[in-house]
Amino acid sequence: MRRKEFAVEDRREAEKFLEETSYGFLGLVTESGDPSVVPLNFVYFRGAIYFHGSQAGEKMNSLRRHNRVCFSAAREYAVIPSYFTDAKYACPATVFFKSVMVRGKAEIVQDPGEKAEVFAAFMRKLQPEGGYSAIDLNDEVYARQIRGTAIVKIHIEEMTAKFKFGQNWPEEKRASVERQLLERGREADAETAEQMRRYNKPKPADNG
Amino acid sequence: MRRKEFAVEDRREAEKFLEETSYGFLGLVTESGDPSVVPLNFVYFRGAIYFHGSQAGEKMNSLRRHNRVCFSAAREYAVIPSYFTDAKYACPATVFFKSVMVRGKAEIVQDPGEKAEVFAAFMRKLQPEGGYSAIDLNDEVYARQIRGTAIVKIHIEEMTAKFKFGQNWPEEKRASVERQLLERGREADAETAEQMRRYNKPKPADNG
Repeated sequence: MRRKEFAVEDRREAEKFLEETSYGFLGLVTESGDPSVVPLNFVYFRGAIYFHGSQAGEKMNSLRRHNRVCFSAAREYAVIPSYFTDAKYACPATVFFKSVMVRGKAEIVQDPGEKAEVFAAFMRKLQPEGGYSAIDLNDEVYARQIRGTAIVKIHIEEMTAKFKFGQNWPEEKRASVERQLLERGREADAETAEQMRRYNKPKPADNG
Repeated sequence: MRRKEFAVEDRREAEKFLEETSYGFLGLVTESGDPSVVPLNFVYFRGAIYFHGSQAGEKMNSLRRHNRVCFSAAREYAVIPSYFTDAKYACPATVFFKSVMVRGKAEIVQDPGEKAEVFAAFMRKLQPEGGYSAIDLNDEVYARQIRGTAIVKIHIEEMTAKFKFGQNWPEEKRASVERQLLERGREADAETAEQMRRYNKPKPADNG
């Protein structure tokens, strides 16, 4: 399978991507048996994915009925135009990206203590600069908010990552595209060139 | 429902978002009856969503078995920290975003002429600056590529958009957040402030 060429085997790389990515897409099966895909802010915390939502709502109903879900997050780094690698044909045009997909079981968290910890983790991710009083169940404003909001935990059973940065290309082609990215200089181009170097590094020796 | 407050009723706004967004997330139901969510580059073309993929692969098998799909795309514009609107509590922390969700039926496109037109639309979107020879079925290189790649069309039955830019806020709160975004000056903050003005404009008179 062509895809294998950019599968990422290092779980820590996938986790790092989840930590630095602010939203993802939850896939669930609705009452009619059809799929639904919802964008959500999330936090990867203690080895699980958490998100919050309204207690009522279609999403919670679907999860209560069918708790097996899929959650994906992705970031597109750069469009690689065909002319970077082929003077004539459009076919080689592609996109470099990172994506992580998680499959698992969704559970609606009931314990107020766990919910408070998840809210705190959300705030550390969303607002790392602080500027709010610590989330505390003894504060009635926070306690009410925590009771009124549903927190869902995805117990991760499978995590797969695909990072595409030309890993299956010959060295010469990679070097040429890297150079052209730096010349083009769009927003994430330099960062993309850096990722190409990062994921195409020769593997350390087995005994290394 | 709170959500209604930022539902976007104007179909053209949703379409524009699809045109300017390079990738989205396809939700489908797998053989086991569980959901799967796959990030994909796509093109919104002649009122449908198109994407391409390998002819074999799990995705195509799932679509052949269960052709009802959901497709979502989103862009996060800005994190609105709690302290923009509340000196003490974390609760008001939120995110401004645009998202569009489509539901419909997936069809694997067979006609080589339609496939060629879709590839051409993809290239106009991905590589608007050109730099490749026109996609033409009479060119054997293109013809082979088109035969070898699956194109999927989503016939849209429902399209919903949510654009969240503080539409349900009192004018004073909106003006204050807009000002603080401009002061903060992160990457998309000025653009976010512009979107706030755009989607909070007073409605034109009925006879306008």
